[in-house]
Amino acid sequence: MSTTFHEIPRERPATPLLDSAETPDGLRRLAESELETLADELRQYLLYSVGQTGGHFGAGLGVVELTIALHYVLDTPEDRLVWDVGHQAYPHKILTGRRERMNTLRQKDGLAAFPRRGESEYDTFGVGHSSTSISAALGMAIAARMQGSPRKAVAVIGDGALTAGMAFEALNHASDVKANMLVVLNDNDMSISKNVGGLSNYLAKIISSRTYSSMREGSKKILSRLPGAWEIARKVEEHAKGMLVPGTLFEELGWNYVGPIDGHDLPTLITTLRNMRDLDGPQFLHVVTKKGKGFAPAEVDPIGYHAITKLEPIKATAPVAPKLASGPKYSAVFGQWLCDMAEEDPRLVGITPAMKEGSDLVAFADRFPERYFDVAIAEQHAVTLAAGMACDGAKPVVAIYSTFLQRAYDQLIHDVAVQHLDVLFAIDRAGLVGEDGPTHAGSFDISYLRCIPGMLIATPSDENELRLLLTTGYHFPGPAAVRYPRGGGPNAVIEPALEGVEIGKAVVRRQGKGVALLAFGVQLSEALRVGETLDATVVDMRFVKPLDEALLRELAGSHDLLVTLEENAVMGGAGGAVSEFLAAENLLKPLLHLGLPDYYVEHAKPAQMLAECGLDQAGIESAIRQRLALLTA
Amino acid sequence: MSTTFHEIPRERPATPLLDSAETPDGLRRLAESELETLADELRQYLLYSVGQTGGHFGAGLGVVELTIALHYVLDTPEDRLVWDVGHQAYPHKILTGRRERMNTLRQKDGLAAFPRRGESEYDTFGVGHSSTSISAALGMAIAARMQGSPRKAVAVIGDGALTAGMAFEALNHASDVKANMLVVLNDNDMSISKNVGGLSNYLAKIISSRTYSSMREGSKKILSRLPGAWEIARKVEEHAKGMLVPGTLFEELGWNYVGPIDGHDLPTLITTLRNMRDLDGPQFLHVVTKKGKGFAPAEVDPIGYHAITKLEPIKATAPVAPKLASGPKYSAVFGQWLCDMAEEDPRLVGITPAMKEGSDLVAFADRFPERYFDVAIAEQHAVTLAAGMACDGAKPVVAIYSTFLQRAYDQLIHDVAVQHLDVLFAIDRAGLVGEDGPTHAGSFDISYLRCIPGMLIATPSDENELRLLLTTGYHFPGPAAVRYPRGGGPNAVIEPALEGVEIGKAVVRRQGKGVALLAFGVQLSEALRVGETLDATVVDMRFVKPLDEALLRELAGSHDLLVTLEENAVMGGAGGAVSEFLAAENLLKPLLHLGLPDYYVEHAKPAQMLAECGLDQAGIESAIRQRLALLTA
Repeated sequence: MSTTFHEIPRERPATPLLDSAETPDGLRRLAESELETLADELRQYLLYSVGQTGGHFGAGLGVVELTIALHYVLDTPEDRLVWDVGHQAYPHKILTGRRERMNTLRQKDGLAAFPRRGESEYDTFGVGHSSTSISAALGMAIAARMQGSPRKAVAVIGDGALTAGMAFEALNHASDVKANMLVVLNDNDMSISKNVGGLSNYLAKIISSRTYSSMREGSKKILSRLPGAWEIARKVEEHAKGMLVPGTLFEELGWNYVGPIDGHDLPTLITTLRNMRDLDGPQFLHVVTKKGKGFAPAEVDPIGYHAITKLEPIKATAPVAPKLASGPKYSAVFGQWLCDMAEEDPRLVGITPAMKEGSDLVAFADRFPERYFDVAIAEQHAVTLAAGMACDGAKPVVAIYSTFLQRAYDQLIHDVAVQHLDVLFAIDRAGLVGEDGPTHAGSFDISYLRCIPGMLIATPSDENELRLLLTTGYHFPGPAAVRYPRGGGPNAVIEPALEGVEIGKAVVRRQGKGVALLAFGVQLSEALRVGETLDATVVDMRFVKPLDEALLRELAGSHDLLVTLEENAVMGGAGGAVSEFLAAENLLKPLLHLGLPDYYVEHAKPAQMLAECGLDQAGIESAIRQRLALLTA
Repeated sequence: MSTTFHEIPRERPATPLLDSAETPDGLRRLAESELETLADELRQYLLYSVGQTGGHFGAGLGVVELTIALHYVLDTPEDRLVWDVGHQAYPHKILTGRRERMNTLRQKDGLAAFPRRGESEYDTFGVGHSSTSISAALGMAIAARMQGSPRKAVAVIGDGALTAGMAFEALNHASDVKANMLVVLNDNDMSISKNVGGLSNYLAKIISSRTYSSMREGSKKILSRLPGAWEIARKVEEHAKGMLVPGTLFEELGWNYVGPIDGHDLPTLITTLRNMRDLDGPQFLHVVTKKGKGFAPAEVDPIGYHAITKLEPIKATAPVAPKLASGPKYSAVFGQWLCDMAEEDPRLVGITPAMKEGSDLVAFADRFPERYFDVAIAEQHAVTLAAGMACDGAKPVVAIYSTFLQRAYDQLIHDVAVQHLDVLFAIDRAGLVGEDGPTHAGSFDISYLRCIPGMLIATPSDENELRLLLTTGYHFPGPAAVRYPRGGGPNAVIEPALEGVEIGKAVVRRQGKGVALLAFGVQLSEALRVGETLDATVVDMRFVKPLDEALLRELAGSHDLLVTLEENAVMGGAGGAVSEFLAAENLLKPLLHLGLPDYYVEHAKPAQMLAECGLDQAGIESAIRQRLALLTA
C-alpha cells in the first residue's frame, strides 16, 4: 500500500532508494520488493519539487507506480516509451537522470514542461498537444521491424487524449499493420476538465462492471477476459444484449485488450507488463489510476490540483514589492463577454474542445448549460459542429487556443469559410505563452488565417478592445477570428455595453511624425511608450483583415518609415499583409516588420521571451533606431 | 429486384416515373409499389447523364435505392439530409430538381461535383473532403432542439469516411448530447481505393456473420439485435469471448445500432427508416450497398469505374484536332521517383492517406509492399506516423494532396517541424484543380507552410524539376515540402539520375531587362513566353523557403519591376515572402504579385480558371503592362 501524503514537503525529503535509482539502469537493479518504497519516495520527491517550482502534478502523482513499472520492465531507452500529452511525465523525468534539474522546470534554459527529444534520450517523442502517442509509437514499431530490431514501442495515453480523432485513426491503422506495439491506457476519467462523450461513458462502465471488481480481488488477466455483467437494462432492449466483454471496442478494432488493472498495484503492473511485452501484434492494456494519487488534497479536488503555483516561503519577513497592477485575464474578459452576449442573443452557442477552464467558459456553462458544448479533445469536430449549427440559424462561438486551432485548420477552411458560415473563433493564447514553450505557442494563426478568403481577423490591443472586437466579430455575418494572448492586459476600463466597431477601420492613438507604428494587438502598449520616445505616430490597427487601406495610403504618404508590430511570425503575418498592400498600390516606402522570428522560441517567462524576440519596449525602439540610421545614412 | 444494365445509354432514356418526381414532393406522391421502377429509371438516367459529362458514378449507382428511400421517408428539405464526401450525391441531385442541369455537371457555371448550399435548398451542407457529415448533422440537430423544431437531421456516411478521426470525434460527442439524429452508414467496403484498418475488418465481419445472412431472409430489426456468431476462434482466446452483437462498437459509443440491412431492398429501407426516424437519441443504421450496383462493368471493377470520362460520339467523322503533346502526369513522375529512390535507399517509406491511385503509389505499393503504408482516410495519423518513423531512422515520404494536408496541419507543425524531423511531403494537387472546385483547390499551402520555422518549400516548374526537387527535399535533413499541380506538365526531358540541386538557389532562365519575372512553380512556362514578348528576365525560383536572397538583391538592383508568379493565394504566398525580404533589406522596388485571388475560384476547366485569375500568358502580360504604364506615367 502506498502512503498518502497530506502536505507538500518544504524540505527536501530523504530518498535513499531513489538516490540509488538515478537512471532506469539503477532502477532495474532494485528488487521488486523495494519498488513500493521507491514509489513513496518518488511521490514525496515529486510533491517537494513541484512545490518548489510550481507546475502540473496531479497527472504525475497518478502514474508514479506505472512509470516505475514501465522502466522496470522495459529496457529503456532502447525500448521506446512515448508519453502522450506530457503533464504525466514528471516522474519519468525524475527517474531518467533529471532529478537534480527538476527545480529548473519550465524556466528559461531549464527542463521543459513536456518530454522533449533534445532533453534526454529517454524522451523518444516530444509532446505538448495530446493524442499523438499511438501514431508516433506505431511509426517507431514499424521502423524497428524494418531494421530487424527487437526493441519495443510503448505509448502511454490518457483516457481524455483517446477521444481525439487522431488517436482513433492510429488505433484503426495499427491492427492493419499488425505492428508489435503496446498501448497503455492511463484511465483516470480526467484529463484537465471532466471528460465527456460516449467513449468516456464506455470506459466508466467497464470499470464499474463486476469484471473489474472481481479482477481487483486478485484474478488478473484470465478473469478480465471473461464476460462480465453489463449494468442491468437501461432499457428492455439493452437487456437482451446480455453480456459485456470489457474492451470489446478495442478488440473490434483489432487490438488484444487486457484489463482493466489497478494502476497503483505494482506487482500486478509488473506481471502484466512482463506478460504483454513479448506478445506479437497490437496490445492494449487498460490501467486505472487516480489523478493526484497519494496526495490527499489532490485526490479530493483533482481539477483544482491539476497544477499549482510554487509555494511562497513561509517566513518572508521583508515586504514583497507590490506587483504592477494588471487587468483581468483576457480569457476572463472573454468569459464575461460570452455570458453577456448570450443574455442578449438566445441564438448564441458556446463550444470548447475540453478547455472549459482554460478558455474560461465556466460561468457560461453554469448559466447556459443548454447552449454550452464541451466536445472533448476534438478540435476538428468542434469546428464542423459549429458549421452545422450555423447552417440552421444558431450563432456558434468556438473558444479555442491558437495552437489547437491548427488541428481544425481544414475544418475552418472547408466547412466554415468556403461556405461563408457565421462562426466566431475566440482565439486564446495567441502569441508566446511562456513556460509551456514552443508546442503551445500561438505563433502562426495570423499567417494561416490570412490567406483564407472571407475571414475577418481582429487583434484587440487591450481588455476593452477585446470586448469591442468580440462583439464586432460576432455580428460579422461570416467567419471571424479574434485573437488575444495568454494572461492579463494593461487593465483598460471595460465598457459594459455590447457595441461593435467599424470593420476594417484602425484607430490613430498618437499623432507623431517620421515614423508610424502600426500595432496589431497587445503590443500597442509598448508601441505607445516607444511613440512617446520617438515622437512617432502610433496606430491600433484593430484588423489584420480587412486592413484599413485608406489609412495605410495616408500614412505611407505622410511618414518616412512604417513599422508593423505583432506577436505572430513575421513570415506571412500582419506585417506581410501591409507589405503586400503597399506593393499592390506601388507605394515605395521603407517598412520594418517586427514580430516573432523564424525559429521556435524556447520556454521562459513571457517577458523574457518577448525581450528575446525584440518585442519589448527596448527592442522595438532599438530596431526602429537602427532602421532610421540606415535611412539617413 | 432492380435491373442490371450492361451499357451506358447514349440516348436519353424514357423515364415516366422520374418525370413525375422532379422534386421530393413529387417522389413522395408515388406509391411505394412504384419505387422499384423509379429506381431503375433513376439508375438508367444516372448512367446516361454521367456518360454525357463524365464524372463519378460508382458511388451514385450504389445509393439509388437509399436516396429514394431517404427522400421518400424524410420531409426534405425541412428535414436535413447531409451527404458525406459527395460523390454519392448525384442521384440526390437528380431527385431534387436538378435533373435537367446534370449535363452541366463539373463545368463552368454548371452544377458542382458535390453538394453545395448555394445550389439547392436540399443541399444542407457543402462537402468535398470526407468525414464531415456527422459533425454537421449533429450541429443541425442541436440547432433544431434549441429552436424547438421537430425537424430531423440525417447524415449519410461511407465506411471509408468513417475511418477519419473527426467522424469518430462526432460519434463520441453525439451520445453525450443525446441529440436526436440519424447516421446512415453506407457500407460498400470501398471508398476510392480498398479500405484499410481495424474498422473496415470489423464491418466486414459483421456482414459475413450469420446475423446478416439470417436478416437478409426477412426478419429485420429484432433479429439484427440478437447475438450472432463471431467467426469462430481466430485464436483460442478469442473463442472464450463468445458472442458478437453486431454494432457493439457503435453501441459502446452510445448509439442505437440497427443493421446491417440490404441497401438495395427498398421495402426494408423504407420500413427501417420509418421506424428509426422518430426514435429519440443518436440512431445508427448500417446499410450495405454495392458500389456500381446495377451496372455490370462497374460491379466487376468498382475502382476502375469510380469515375469515367465522357463518352466520345460514336460516329465522329471529322478528324479530331490532335491534342497538344503533354507530358506525363506529375503524380506519375512522383510515383516513378518514389520507386527509384526506394531502390536506392532501403530506409525510404511511402505513406498515403487512402490515395494510392490519386497520388500514384500503385507501382511502389506493388514493388515495396513492406514499405508502403496506406493509413486509410487519416491525414493526421499519416503525418505523426511519419514523425515516429523519422525518430528511429526511417525516411518517410508522405504523399498527400495540398487540400488534405490542411487536415494534418497541426501534426506537421507540432510533431514534425518543432522536432525538426526528416519527413518529405510530396504535395500533389497544389494550385487550382479544375472541376472539383474550391473544396479541392490547393490554394493555401505556401501560405500556411511558409510561417513554419525550419521548413524547406520547393516549387518545381516542370517534370524534371519535380524529380530534382524531390531528391533535394528527400536529402534535406528536416521537414521538406515539394508542391506540384494536378495533371501534366510541359513534357520536359526527365533525367533518370537521382540528383539534387543546391538549396535556396534559383535559376535564371532568361536574361532580359526592365522586368524580372520570378516564377514559383509551373507558371514558369507562361513566364518564359511573356519574357519573350517583353524581353524580361525570367527566373525559376525553385524554392519559396529559403529564398535566393542574393539573386533577389541583384535583381532589385538591376531591374525596374519585380513580378512574382505562383499558383497559390497572393495573401501570404511566395510573393509575400519576396516583399517581406525586400522590406527587411530596405530595397524599395516596384513589386507586382500575381497569384490566386482572395476569393474561392469556382469549378471549371483548369485553363478557364487560370485565365479567370489572370495567370495565363495573356493575363500575366496584361498585368505587367498595366503596372509598367503606371511606373512610367
